[in-house]
Order: sequence, then C-alpha cells, then structure tokens
Amino acid sequence: MNFLEERIMKDGIVKEGNVLKVDSFLNHQMDIGLFDEMGAEFKKRFEGKPINKIVTIEASGIGIACVVARHFNVPVVFAKKSKSINIDGDMYVAEVESFTHKCKNQVIVSKKFLGEEDHVLIIDDFLANGCALQGLISIVNEAGGTVEGIGIAIEKGFQVGGQVIRNLGYQLESLAIVDGMDAATGKIEFRK
Amino acid sequence: MNFLEERIMKDGIVKEGNVLKVDSFLNHQMDIGLFDEMGAEFKKRFEGKPINKIVTIEASGIGIACVVARHFNVPVVFAKKSKSINIDGDMYVAEVESFTHKCKNQVIVSKKFLGEEDHVLIIDDFLANGCALQGLISIVNEAGGTVEGIGIAIEKGFQVGGQVIRNLGYQLESLAIVDGMDAATGKIEFRK
Repeated sequence: MNFLEERIMKDGIVKEGNVLKVDSFLNHQMDIGLFDEMGAEFKKRFEGKPINKIVTIEASGIGIACVVARHFNVPVVFAKKSKSINIDGDMYVAEVESFTHKCKNQVIVSKKFLGEEDHVLIIDDFLANGCALQGLISIVNEAGGTVEGIGIAIEKGFQVGGQVIRNLGYQLESLAIVDGMDAATGKIEFRK
Repeated sequence: MNFLEERIMKDGIVKEGNVLKVDSFLNHQMDIGLFDEMGAEFKKRFEGKPINKIVTIEASGIGIACVVARHFNVPVVFAKKSKSINIDGDMYVAEVESFTHKCKNQVIVSKKFLGEEDHVLIIDDFLANGCALQGLISIVNEAGGTVEGIGIAIEKGFQVGGQVIRNLGYQLESLAIVDGMDAATGKIEFRK
C-alpha cells in the first residue's frame, strides 16, 4: 500500500451505497502535508512531460491542485461549475451531464487563461463516472492546448470514468484505485 | 508598495462599479509563488499566535489557504456555501445575508472539524462587505473555538467589512487595502 491507500484505510469511512468519506483529510478538512506527498508523487509519475499549467475544478480540487503546483512550479487555473446559464464569448464552456444526478452542468474557464501554448496537467480529488473530468478535457482541447496527463487522488475503479479516460489514450494516474468497498465490514479493496 | 500591491498595479484591472479584476493571478488563474509570499507574510504578522487550524470558504479562498497553511504547518477546513437548505445536526450553519445580492446564503462546516481546541486563522481572498467572513467567525465561535486572526489578500477599504471586523477587536491583516479606484484612468489608491 502507498501513503494515500494507508491513509484511506486509517481515516476513510465506508458508507452504504458505495460512498467513501474522506472528508477528514481530503475534501473538507485538508491535510496539506499529505497533499505535498501527492505533489511529489505526481511529479515523479509525469516526469519529462512539458507541463506548464495545472487545471482543476472547484471546489475540492483546488487545494490539492495548488499544493501539487508547487512541485511543478506552474500556475493553477480552476474551472467554475454552474447550472446552465448564458455566458459571454470570453469563456470556454463544456456542458456535462451527470450520470448520478441526471442534471446538466457547465464547466467554465476564461479564454484568457487557456490557449494553444498550454501543456496541461489536470488534477482532481475524485474520479467516479468522470463527467467533470470529461468537461475539463473538452475545454483544454477546445482551447487548442494539450492534456499531458491527469492526476487523481482517489479513483472508484468500479465506476466507468477511469476506463473511459484510459481508453481515450490519456495518461491517467490515480494514487488510489478503490475496486470495492463493504459498508458492513468497512473493508476497502485497492487495485494492485 | 508591498509585493501584492505591486502585482495588483501590474495585473489588476479596474472596471466600472468599483470592480477590481485580479483573476489572472488570484481567483481564477492562481500564482502559487505569490500565494507562497503571502503565506510567509501572514506567518510574520501572526507570529506568536497559537494557530492550529486555517478556515476558509469555497471556492477562491481554498487555494490561498492551502499554500498559506504550509507556513503554519496546520490543516485547512473549508466552509461550504449553499442556498438555504435543511442540514442535519452534524453541521455548524451560519445564515448570512449578502448586502449586494440581497440573497441569503448558508455557510456550513462539519462539526467534526471545528471544536473548543481550535485556534483558528481565517483566510480569504477578498474582503468587501464581509458577509461570508461574518459567517465564518460565527461558526468558529459557535464551535467554542478561538479566532486568532484573519488574513485577507485584498480588502476594499471603501466598503464596510474591514471596519466592522476591526471594531469587533479581531486582528485583521489585509495585505492590500484598496481605498479607491478609477475605471477611467485605471488608477488604484492603496491605504498607507
């Protein structure tokens, strides 16, 4: 087990309905030392890639992205989430449909902050069905930039998001891939 | 002028209606090196305070808070914003009314992550009328914790928020206080 899997075993809580609560260290209270370790690990895994920007999505991706960014010495741009609204032409907008909530959302980035010159590492805390992530990829591509890789803290391996992204040929690095959980016993099975 | 005032002069854009756009380095694209300097400065200004937690509010406060937290070696808790909804008893909830938007919002933190033992530094990117900040203070007090100080990147000195907080006796440190702006000339006046 790596450092993140160990932390999930120690402080993660499995709830009914395949819910994994990690709000004590990842996405409500945030352990900055842990994020720093994640940054060092992503730096290793994306060694040699000409990354000049990190893109993430509000809200819980922002903290990880900012701490990871110190290891790459690059700025962070965070996409905003919104219910569908009219946006003026200065924004890249991706419409994404949530599998779970059956609602449409927009993922929005100002055109000022993404362009052809950008080699992007996308960072987020969770990957399940991957709707938000698909929106982020769509926006980087629309801007003419390059997705150099995707770094995720926790992937739910039993949901479709990760497989889709790997099938599309992207380098997706998830620090912990959860293949199964049992709320009754609290057991968590990680992918080897 | 300090480093942040200089950066605002260089990259901030003054718009009609006392709007200061700093989205190229502070709250959409984020300059992590700048946040690091801010962290060092806050560490100096709050020297000797027994701070063991940083509290901020989604979304644009999170990045600054996480980079600042490295200087204090403490975890970050970010409050969630929500339209008024029913929340179960495990949450601290502050109702805050926006002066500008005339709408009520809730500021929410899980009871698990704030308590009597907490000596809190509140961090946010902007302070104008200070509604969100009042909500954060209210929650820390409700939890029985201590607000040791408040660190803000940019305060709009011509709006009421900062004065209220200082009148209440809190140590409020704003790295740049804007006392006036002129959209026609682009001029920005900082408090000495």
